[in-house]
Amino acid sequence: MKKSLLFACLLLSFLSPGFAQKQATWIWYPGDYEVWLGNNMQNRRTERGTFLPPFWKLDSHYNLIDFHKDFDIPEAEEVELTVEGRYNVKIDGKAFPGFPTKITVPAGKHRVSLKVFCQDRVPAIFVKGKNVVSDNSWLVTFEDKEWIDETGKASDQSGTTWLKAGSWNFNTAQTPPSAFRLNTTEQAAVKTERKPGSILLDFGKETFGFIKLNGLTGKGKVMIYYGESREEALATETCETTDELHLAMTQKRDSVMELTKAFRYVSIQFDGSVSIDNVSMLYEYLPVADRGSFRCSDEQINKIYDVAAYTLHLNTREFFIDGIKRDRWVWSGDASQSYLMNYYLLFDSPTVTRTMLAMRGKDPVTSHINTIMDYSSYWFISIYDYYLYSGDKAFVQQFYPRMQSLMDYMLARRNKNGLLEGLAGDWVFIDWAEGLSKKGEVSFEQLLFARSLETMAVCANIVNDVPNATKYAKLAADVKQTLFSAYWNEQKQALVHSRINGVPTENVTRYANMFAIFFNYLDEAKKQAVKKHVLLNPDVPRITTPYMRFYELEALCALGEQTYVTKEMKAYWGGMLDLGATSFWEEYNPTKKGAEHYAMYGREFGKSLCHAWGASPIYLLGKYYLGVKPLTPAYDTYLIEPQLGGLAWIDGKVPTPDGDVSVYCSAKDIRVTGAAAGTGTLRFASKAKPICKQGAIRTTSDGKFELTIEKGKSYVVSYKL
Amino acid sequence: MKKSLLFACLLLSFLSPGFAQKQATWIWYPGDYEVWLGNNMQNRRTERGTFLPPFWKLDSHYNLIDFHKDFDIPEAEEVELTVEGRYNVKIDGKAFPGFPTKITVPAGKHRVSLKVFCQDRVPAIFVKGKNVVSDNSWLVTFEDKEWIDETGKASDQSGTTWLKAGSWNFNTAQTPPSAFRLNTTEQAAVKTERKPGSILLDFGKETFGFIKLNGLTGKGKVMIYYGESREEALATETCETTDELHLAMTQKRDSVMELTKAFRYVSIQFDGSVSIDNVSMLYEYLPVADRGSFRCSDEQINKIYDVAAYTLHLNTREFFIDGIKRDRWVWSGDASQSYLMNYYLLFDSPTVTRTMLAMRGKDPVTSHINTIMDYSSYWFISIYDYYLYSGDKAFVQQFYPRMQSLMDYMLARRNKNGLLEGLAGDWVFIDWAEGLSKKGEVSFEQLLFARSLETMAVCANIVNDVPNATKYAKLAADVKQTLFSAYWNEQKQALVHSRINGVPTENVTRYANMFAIFFNYLDEAKKQAVKKHVLLNPDVPRITTPYMRFYELEALCALGEQTYVTKEMKAYWGGMLDLGATSFWEEYNPTKKGAEHYAMYGREFGKSLCHAWGASPIYLLGKYYLGVKPLTPAYDTYLIEPQLGGLAWIDGKVPTPDGDVSVYCSAKDIRVTGAAAGTGTLRFASKAKPICKQGAIRTTSDGKFELTIEKGKSYVVSYKL
Repeated sequence: MKKSLLFACLLLSFLSPGFAQKQATWIWYPGDYEVWLGNNMQNRRTERGTFLPPFWKLDSHYNLIDFHKDFDIPEAEEVELTVEGRYNVKIDGKAFPGFPTKITVPAGKHRVSLKVFCQDRVPAIFVKGKNVVSDNSWLVTFEDKEWIDETGKASDQSGTTWLKAGSWNFNTAQTPPSAFRLNTTEQAAVKTERKPGSILLDFGKETFGFIKLNGLTGKGKVMIYYGESREEALATETCETTDELHLAMTQKRDSVMELTKAFRYVSIQFDGSVSIDNVSMLYEYLPVADRGSFRCSDEQINKIYDVAAYTLHLNTREFFIDGIKRDRWVWSGDASQSYLMNYYLLFDSPTVTRTMLAMRGKDPVTSHINTIMDYSSYWFISIYDYYLYSGDKAFVQQFYPRMQSLMDYMLARRNKNGLLEGLAGDWVFIDWAEGLSKKGEVSFEQLLFARSLETMAVCANIVNDVPNATKYAKLAADVKQTLFSAYWNEQKQALVHSRINGVPTENVTRYANMFAIFFNYLDEAKKQAVKKHVLLNPDVPRITTPYMRFYELEALCALGEQTYVTKEMKAYWGGMLDLGATSFWEEYNPTKKGAEHYAMYGREFGKSLCHAWGASPIYLLGKYYLGVKPLTPAYDTYLIEPQLGGLAWIDGKVPTPDGDVSVYCSAKDIRVTGAAAGTGTLRFASKAKPICKQGAIRTTSDGKFELTIEKGKSYVVSYKL
Repeated sequence: MKKSLLFACLLLSFLSPGFAQKQATWIWYPGDYEVWLGNNMQNRRTERGTFLPPFWKLDSHYNLIDFHKDFDIPEAEEVELTVEGRYNVKIDGKAFPGFPTKITVPAGKHRVSLKVFCQDRVPAIFVKGKNVVSDNSWLVTFEDKEWIDETGKASDQSGTTWLKAGSWNFNTAQTPPSAFRLNTTEQAAVKTERKPGSILLDFGKETFGFIKLNGLTGKGKVMIYYGESREEALATETCETTDELHLAMTQKRDSVMELTKAFRYVSIQFDGSVSIDNVSMLYEYLPVADRGSFRCSDEQINKIYDVAAYTLHLNTREFFIDGIKRDRWVWSGDASQSYLMNYYLLFDSPTVTRTMLAMRGKDPVTSHINTIMDYSSYWFISIYDYYLYSGDKAFVQQFYPRMQSLMDYMLARRNKNGLLEGLAGDWVFIDWAEGLSKKGEVSFEQLLFARSLETMAVCANIVNDVPNATKYAKLAADVKQTLFSAYWNEQKQALVHSRINGVPTENVTRYANMFAIFFNYLDEAKKQAVKKHVLLNPDVPRITTPYMRFYELEALCALGEQTYVTKEMKAYWGGMLDLGATSFWEEYNPTKKGAEHYAMYGREFGKSLCHAWGASPIYLLGKYYLGVKPLTPAYDTYLIEPQLGGLAWIDGKVPTPDGDVSVYCSAKDIRVTGAAAGTGTLRFASKAKPICKQGAIRTTSDGKFELTIEKGKSYVVSYKL
């Protein structure tokens, strides 16, 4: 089905120029819908019935927008207009009276323009004629600097900046952006325990949606206690989320709760004459299909992959959120991992860009992203990744000014050494880890900052901002150099954690060291030193969050330690599965027991049991086992370097912007099919001379083998591991 | 009645600390309601039925706000909460579940805080207990940079900026800010001409409000054509504003139009079976009373004063707008004159600050105020004036950062000579005048810029920003010096209009020269030279807008030319009255005939016949005839220097923050009563030794006489003009 869909899309794109009715879609000022939707979504969190909004600044869309496009059409056509907001419409600058829903555009060259004011929703238009249709080739501005003189003549020195319109997939007049809701589907509990005045439901696994009380009637109070664990649902005083209803009903009716919740278990208590026939839920989800896949010889790893995929799906909603129970917000550090997993499972770019734009918001920048210093850097690094995986230059071109203003904010917060050090209002996060020092100049922050500056250099080049490309590259090089001169400890063979009052500490942590490996900031000798003295050194404090385990295991994979990583994955993620996890957690400490696992932030059930950052095996297995990764933007060239990591065989797919790459690998066979575009390079080691009938195998200078993978072609290689 | 009201207010303020129930009022983030209300108001303009919004950027309120205040109360009290938006409420950081409308605050010291999200309206709260009430002593922020660590402990290095809450006069739970509407009162036409299918109404004078069709019924179309002149109302194809109704009514009903319009005449045409019993209007107005007054021996001047006062009232609405037909927007140049007139008629500070804040909007600054270079300067200069007249330091303290960011924008747009020169997107307006050059470095713009920098220096001192006070003062001095070195032409004895490519032109205009006089930038010799060679020189292009006549006549008054000004006033404003004006116009050129007067911008009825800037006689008569002006902020000290300007007697009142100053002056008597606070100095010339029983008259070094006016005291001086 996926193939036929793809084919239909290709067919459509071949046919569309001139042959068919053009596709109209709702458009708006780019980034504004994302900000608006982010506000709506992030303000739906409650904690024990109390509204719990984010603690950082929320921005607003521009409320007054000019839209226009120049058309040249062969004959006059009737055009339908649907608009969110109060508006006017003009052809060649001449306005129609009132708020027309239909206009005729005459034949020839004409400029169609609309101006829309809307405060509560995002000003948006849907224009549908034969040729005159709204799409993201329209130009938009929030500030058309055009004035007239006393004779009515327009000025000739406009300072207006026009951007391309933003859009998503709202392709009918009846589906305006403000009406968007995620899909829902009704699901039943797998187990129901009824007692007088109470019902306890088990939905079989972690889930998300609206509880629905079917056949509800009577007079009295209904309390709903949600639990990601059975313990939580039963802990009526301390469970994190609740609903409270006060009924005075005489007829039976089905009642759907107003807000979505995360739960597996639900405990319902009611009094008075209340009766409930039965309870179901409306599962809420973003309809996005898996494109990547992974299977291997180890059933536990397969289970880990499936639960990771489900965890990511649950957290892939209007945006990539951190966790479905908590915080249900858009956090940059969390999202940047979701993006990477997404490239190996869904390859859904709109959710990536929606999330990045919602997080970035508008100018002026008054704090770090989510107030966290490292999270500003992750925002930049995510753009680096997004461009590499998707090749989406248009995104960079439209939003480069917002990248610049955030970078200006960071640059303005450097200390006298040109390094980042927490000022008032800067949250230095790094990781949830007991006793982790955030004081002084933390090496990890400088390392992320260097990568952010490298991203800016890449993006400056994309928009042909040559002077700033040079400036950012120089700044990046300076920070990198300081990183090694200030933090590398020869004795410890590692980057130390921080420098306080100009003096490097003796403290070695994993953070900067592991990132330096997959950022490729270390030479080979240093990489091996870090592996030995940090990554595989039990004396360096261990990491307990899946968040930082993501990067720790990525670093080990990048060092070719897949076999070690397989064991770690089975122990850590397998450990959660052994405890009955149906989605992966915010934090996992194997030394804890029973319900201790559910506590965090000083609260009995404070921990989120479905946190996106727990889903990293998707990424690790796709990138470092199937071994597929882009070498140049949009997989124009890419590498396939399968690694069994101790498994007998692995088999899966990795999505690209244009088709999937299929990889099967065992100790003696490698089977690969190239994506529909781009050129791959299969690289592998073999103890015997490998054979391939479909292509010529080359030998590399380091004694490995390479095979060019042409687009869409399949290859079978016989070799010996 | 006014006195007793004032007394009641004073009584209340004496009683309030501890004696009575505290006054609760709706509060919000300061400046946000003004921005929101400005969006609403400025997007109500239509032109021939077409929505016509502003062409500059509109900002939005912050949608997520933290409010808090620390209380220390003797006993527990019940507190009612009314909120615009989704909210939570906490005492000492502990949240109540849900959205409580009543809470109990325990005795003792407690922090009450609310957090509110609202996108379509401004987040606002109304808190009403005995002591726990919302008022502008609460602290607010849009960004509470508070986070917790993994144990739930709050950070100890918040970077949050707290401001005092904003408020107006919404003092009951039932009058939330979003529900605010101006007052209305029904009024009848003074003349009605009926024909089959048409009605022509004359409301007797320029007015503003909603047309009301009483006893409307039938099926058909109704067209309403509005005219500030009879000609306009009858010009169905070219009148500026219209309404269109399509009826299918079976019962009679009164129908009020949706949007307000400006008009004196209304022509209504209808077809089909439509019938209308009669037509009235709902006059819409801001309920604000006159405090200033002026009467004199010349009935034409009295009429001018009354029509000017009516013109200002019509344009004093949610904000000080430019004109009621057009543009119905908030323009900085126009508003800055309304503020000055306001200080002599209404002394309504809330309308001043609402207007300044709506215009300034939010950061980032992406253009000049209203896109006009001079209008950014007027915004600063208005703050200078506002502080001088009102003494409102709190305003400066709250909004100094927004002053700084606008000034940063201006400073960043200086050319290599440190002067302002129009860049792409900068509208150099100056005045509506045919052929007026806007090219190069215009002297007028530098002069306003210097004054803006002086304002910044004053305000920097108010907020104790000493380094910047020094910086701004230095910059102002530099620009002033350049002004004279670059533009003063010895031969012409005047500032020339501009410098193009570094070369001063020979062109002399009135603008910079007249402002330089009342800014006191000229020495006495230059003042006299400018008077002779520019102001009284018919070869220098004359001014045809009341806008710049305001400043031209102010300059002449400042030079003591009241007698000349009286003649000019009678000729110019009297000229409009002679043409039947019932409010003063946007532009008046005595050489035009009949309906030519109504044309502008290439449109037959493009001119606004009720423009605030036409009302300047209020200001001139108050400040330069009654001669009352503050010498130090808030009239702490003030001058009274009456000038008859050729009139036999003048008599009037000038409002101050604390009571009015009364002045009567003839050729032999001066009678003065001081304001309720502050110390005045009466200054006058006399050919005979003046006598006053109530105080000791001093002689000044320049041969004039002075008398100290104590607060609230009355003085009678006999003298000889």
